[in-house]
Amino acid sequence: MAESVYTDYPPSLNPAQKDFLVRTVKDWATQNGLMVRPAPTFVSKESDPRGVLATNAPVTLFPSPFPRTCFEEAKALQTLYNKLYAAITCNEEWIGKIMEDLIDVDDFISNLWKVHLAVKEEGYAQTLSLGLFRSDYMAHAPSTSTIPELKQVEFNTISSSFGGLSSLVASLHSELLDSPPGSPIAYPSHPLLKPKAIPENTAVETLSAGLATAHTAYGQSKSQPQLPTCILFVVQENERNIFDQLALSRQLTKVHKIPVFRLLSSEILDHTYIPSSNPSRPLIYRPPYAEEIHFEVTTVYLRSFYTPTDYNSNRDWEARTHLERSAAIKCPTVLNQLSGSKIVQQVLATQTGQDHLATFLADTDPALISRLRATF
Amino acid sequence: MAESVYTDYPPSLNPAQKDFLVRTVKDWATQNGLMVRPAPTFVSKESDPRGVLATNAPVTLFPSPFPRTCFEEAKALQTLYNKLYAAITCNEEWIGKIMEDLIDVDDFISNLWKVHLAVKEEGYAQTLSLGLFRSDYMAHAPSTSTIPELKQVEFNTISSSFGGLSSLVASLHSELLDSPPGSPIAYPSHPLLKPKAIPENTAVETLSAGLATAHTAYGQSKSQPQLPTCILFVVQENERNIFDQLALSRQLTKVHKIPVFRLLSSEILDHTYIPSSNPSRPLIYRPPYAEEIHFEVTTVYLRSFYTPTDYNSNRDWEARTHLERSAAIKCPTVLNQLSGSKIVQQVLATQTGQDHLATFLADTDPALISRLRATF
Repeated sequence: MAESVYTDYPPSLNPAQKDFLVRTVKDWATQNGLMVRPAPTFVSKESDPRGVLATNAPVTLFPSPFPRTCFEEAKALQTLYNKLYAAITCNEEWIGKIMEDLIDVDDFISNLWKVHLAVKEEGYAQTLSLGLFRSDYMAHAPSTSTIPELKQVEFNTISSSFGGLSSLVASLHSELLDSPPGSPIAYPSHPLLKPKAIPENTAVETLSAGLATAHTAYGQSKSQPQLPTCILFVVQENERNIFDQLALSRQLTKVHKIPVFRLLSSEILDHTYIPSSNPSRPLIYRPPYAEEIHFEVTTVYLRSFYTPTDYNSNRDWEARTHLERSAAIKCPTVLNQLSGSKIVQQVLATQTGQDHLATFLADTDPALISRLRATF
Repeated sequence: MAESVYTDYPPSLNPAQKDFLVRTVKDWATQNGLMVRPAPTFVSKESDPRGVLATNAPVTLFPSPFPRTCFEEAKALQTLYNKLYAAITCNEEWIGKIMEDLIDVDDFISNLWKVHLAVKEEGYAQTLSLGLFRSDYMAHAPSTSTIPELKQVEFNTISSSFGGLSSLVASLHSELLDSPPGSPIAYPSHPLLKPKAIPENTAVETLSAGLATAHTAYGQSKSQPQLPTCILFVVQENERNIFDQLALSRQLTKVHKIPVFRLLSSEILDHTYIPSSNPSRPLIYRPPYAEEIHFEVTTVYLRSFYTPTDYNSNRDWEARTHLERSAAIKCPTVLNQLSGSKIVQQVLATQTGQDHLATFLADTDPALISRLRATF
């Protein structure tokens, strides 16, 4: 029974329907910035030396059905997940014990842990940190039941992407479901394809609000004289998914009126500094195109430095340490990044020994903790 | 004196400034749909067989200065220009006399005139027509004066383009002038480069409002039983400037809630018909991807059929006649299109013989007519 909705979904398309849908999706994506820079295997550097081409982000023609009960459960549990990972991030001793086992076998984890230890030795200049998390799920259909279960795939604590583009995908499918207004015919008739079937997606607004909250929490410039403040997006070279990121910076600029700059992780040491004379350790950004004006960075948003290939030399580790020891609020800190590693997810899911969930979420209704545990 | 502002404008850019501006403009254009499909000379059909690539529309890095007095004068005269060309459109006899001289030497004009004569013989089914005009100017700096004068280059009565993209260009330059908020540094310092220096551009809102007004003026469906109504954009094959057009259809759909369809001019006869049994001659559109639902076209917006190369065979002229004889409101009618031909501009500008301006604008303050004449 529960599977019947999938067996005839999505509905089949005749050539005219397919042609219309594909064309409409391509045009809509381009008109609305649901875009990526094309892969080098598709458009070579030689054929587009100035990098002026873009293409639609890959999307499904139809919205993907997902059991509403699972969706509501994921939403209901998100705040608790946020609390859990915030609590883990604040427990350096607990994280340290887990990392100890990995330090000899995993260079990446080991180096991250060393960054933390080095900054800890000097003393952190910033007690606040910002987490923008993305919890990924699948709906599990047990063979013994017709009721689908929510199962977590992974929990991301750094560079959680696609908030910007997925909001646009939701808009695209919503518009198609209601197109044209009054007489929707863009999709063929199907019980699942009704106007207003797509849940609201506020990822751009809420993720940007998180960054804006950190910006405000930083408070006034710690420099003398005071400098204008900003948020710094630290990004990878040749980022293809830039428009996902720009959706957040546009919101921060337009709605929150906060200056946002983008800086390659490889150029951090060239264009930022921490004045040695200032014990508050503010992170100062000098835009290379207007070096006479200095900005104080309230919040560093990492869209790089999340994978081993983002560290090509000791200089990159030096840059990461430089950010970590600064007064800027990091999204995320090294400890917050480590809390999202697979090994932590594994320890939390282990049923033997100490009940970590109960410890980290001591003030929480045990029934709610059970629901969270059921997603493991 | 008046020229000094141009001699150091735009300000020169060092490599870091140029790199930042070019990159920012390219990314902004892609994020906001300030796009065109790439030219076949840039991206061949073979290297992008599915047509998924797009590139930024060509734009200037800096806003182009234009004398404010000339700009204000052009705005002040636009309504009078609209009235003038509406009056010409309504004077078939006057247009006919001008066209007589061209019929033997200009096949295109001759064929358009024949479409009008054929429909006139049968009798027009629609008395209303819609004009969306674009009046192009340059600022003329006479050698004898320091005061620049407004001079019209041409007046467009069909397929007046770039309302959609030029609004975005205004937004782009406005944002750059104020970027980042509070400490603008995207542009180098220059007296002309100040926040809020760009006049508001409401082309998308006003052009769409024109189409929506025509849609409403058409009134109820003339079919039995009544059909849902729509606006039809008649477009060229391989249109590169599609995002300019989609800016208008998005506004019509989102704000005015009017169904909008796009149809190639070469496919008009395949997907529209006029029921021979209905003396009101409604134009019926059958979307090829949902042929069971028929829409009645209130307004035909021509973004094709404006140039001889849009007519490849008698079938295209047949399609144009088919639209013209229907009850749909045309933007523009054949007569309205002809009123925008160069020869009409030339006759209006001729100072000898009858004063056409005074005749067409009989109820207008002569001083205002003089100002309009001064732009010739």
